Amino acid sequence: MSVTAAKGFQAAGIAAGIKENGNPDLALVVNSGPRRAAAGVFTSNRVKAAPVLWSEQVLKGGQVAAVVLNSGGANACTGPKGFQDTHATAEKAAEALGVDAAEVAVASTGLIGVTLPMDKLLPGVEAAAAALSPHGGEKAAIAIKTTDSVHKTAVFEGEGWTVGGMAKGAGMLAPGLATMLVVLTTDADLPAADLDKALREATRLTFDRVDSDGCMSTNDTVLLLASGAADVTPGQAEFAEAVRGVCDDLARQLIGDAEGASKDIRIEVVGAASEDDAVEVGRSIARNNLLKCAIHGEDPNWGRVLSAIGTTGAAFEPDRLNVAINDVWVCKNGSVGEDRDLVDMRYREVKITADLAAGSESAVIWANDLTADYVHENSAYSS
Amino acid sequence: MSVTAAKGFQAAGIAAGIKENGNPDLALVVNSGPRRAAAGVFTSNRVKAAPVLWSEQVLKGGQVAAVVLNSGGANACTGPKGFQDTHATAEKAAEALGVDAAEVAVASTGLIGVTLPMDKLLPGVEAAAAALSPHGGEKAAIAIKTTDSVHKTAVFEGEGWTVGGMAKGAGMLAPGLATMLVVLTTDADLPAADLDKALREATRLTFDRVDSDGCMSTNDTVLLLASGAADVTPGQAEFAEAVRGVCDDLARQLIGDAEGASKDIRIEVVGAASEDDAVEVGRSIARNNLLKCAIHGEDPNWGRVLSAIGTTGAAFEPDRLNVAINDVWVCKNGSVGEDRDLVDMRYREVKITADLAAGSESAVIWANDLTADYVHENSAYSS
Repeated sequence: MSVTAAKGFQAAGIAAGIKENGNPDLALVVNSGPRRAAAGVFTSNRVKAAPVLWSEQVLKGGQVAAVVLNSGGANACTGPKGFQDTHATAEKAAEALGVDAAEVAVASTGLIGVTLPMDKLLPGVEAAAAALSPHGGEKAAIAIKTTDSVHKTAVFEGEGWTVGGMAKGAGMLAPGLATMLVVLTTDADLPAADLDKALREATRLTFDRVDSDGCMSTNDTVLLLASGAADVTPGQAEFAEAVRGVCDDLARQLIGDAEGASKDIRIEVVGAASEDDAVEVGRSIARNNLLKCAIHGEDPNWGRVLSAIGTTGAAFEPDRLNVAINDVWVCKNGSVGEDRDLVDMRYREVKITADLAAGSESAVIWANDLTADYVHENSAYSS
Repeated sequence: MSVTAAKGFQAAGIAAGIKENGNPDLALVVNSGPRRAAAGVFTSNRVKAAPVLWSEQVLKGGQVAAVVLNSGGANACTGPKGFQDTHATAEKAAEALGVDAAEVAVASTGLIGVTLPMDKLLPGVEAAAAALSPHGGEKAAIAIKTTDSVHKTAVFEGEGWTVGGMAKGAGMLAPGLATMLVVLTTDADLPAADLDKALREATRLTFDRVDSDGCMSTNDTVLLLASGAADVTPGQAEFAEAVRGVCDDLARQLIGDAEGASKDIRIEVVGAASEDDAVEVGRSIARNNLLKCAIHGEDPNWGRVLSAIGTTGAAFEPDRLNVAINDVWVCKNGSVGEDRDLVDMRYREVKITADLAAGSESAVIWANDLTADYVHENSAYSS
């Protein structure tokens, strides 16, 4: 399944020796056509990793023949040498596959500020090319894991066409535009412009509304490749809905596997004057460390929700705000509402509903709690 | 010392029974003149506690005769009842002191969303009035503590005049304009407008540049009261510098006592095109949870500094950024710099210098690391 669920794709995932522990660390996804249309969305962080700078250029051509992805090193903040390494990676894949290097996207993930071991990566690209299989999607998804505890895949089956995908990401998870590493594939036959439109709308509503820890990565990359092998051209709306569904599924898996998290928090902002207001308020709630700690402690501390809302520029009157936690309206009209002891927070998913009472727009942001495990995992990551 | 270091002030700190553990929880500061000029700065959180709404009105008159401060309850998000309670508190103090309630400021701190036990607070105000003393500053500073492990006071001695102050605050510590509860007093003779100017400039450069946990309180209040009892009018610049020095001292004490923190992080942004850019970048670094975890783990993870800088709108080129941790330039020109193993992070204070190489402006932001202790303390606070 994964990126090989759609016809016209092969993939591989191998251990190239980039990770010192010997785990799989190199994935290759190849579009064997007949079409090679593609779209991509990348981090809006202004400090961009070398593979992001490279792949942005590749995607401008609207065609992608192959994607090389490595874990074990982000190749970010590595200067001209880092860019040369990404270029060499694309050239090596192009040579092994008999395609144009200008149609090979590259994505990397891992520690920032460390150059990649090219003596291991380049032979790894050759080995991955030799291991390509129409059933290789699972192995590819495994090879891009970093601190992920599980690999993430999703598939949507249309009538005669398919959208599949894989994702990695467990930390530095608060995309500005795209997030983490994601490769989506489809055998539908659509031009690059249509893919781009569907992908941008999908990421805006899914990955872009995940905020595990408020930290935006330098390497976020989401690619969508279309092979046309199914010889079907679905309607734009139908296709866009499918892409969004797969992205939503993967985004939910990312939150469910976030570093150290014990709770997944679904923040729904309703009654907003605009969708932008709803997203701004949702993100402010999602990033409030004190609230994240309270949720970890299964404490329905709605005062921290209000203090987070109050830092935004959204339209609202403080004395009209309502907040529910797991459907108990603990705050009504900006003051004490239903009995907080009625809130049951034993389950992993916690639902916060913030009603701005200022309109009819809404948005959902997914977040995690803040735990001692998150601190432990991230105080030792580069050591 | 504290708020009674300057002539013309009396203070008291008592246990009124607001806190269930019986600790001191009510402070009273009285200006016995001859002048009663005052200035105040308050939270820019749009969800403001009742005492903030009240005191903002009081300060518009430019005169404060007394300040009642309580810990054990923030009186925030408590609706019309909360405002009535604040009003009743001011009336009770006015009655006990023989002053106008419109000149009595009120400040509260503690849990949001819980109404104050007025049956304990009002008799407490009477008891505090009876306990007033020109040596009561220390007791007042103790009575406003919440999760603070120590009380905080500071004093500046001018030529024939004095500025003293007290502060509380250990969490929800990322002011938008002012922060926490702070009362400053002086016996200098200055009109309210001059006090206001000095106070705004001082808070902008001190409390406003402290960011312990990115969470802005609903109750932040900083007051400056002038008695004129020294019968001296210092120059505006000299006075402003004194106020700033006392604020800086108190701000540094707040960071040093932040909930669960094991490191105080001094973030200096240099080479910025504007002071606003420097502050924006400093704050972005200060709020990066992954970096805060790394500092806790004594890990000079400069990649997380760059990823934080990259989320800002400040003027810079990614490949010209330089970052030093404890004076070791681990990142040069956006890439790997000096050996990270040279960085010694054993001490509590950690210095991060970010050079944007885009101008000559700079700013310092103080922050803390993120620890398991912070999570523990804040996952159980309201329970």
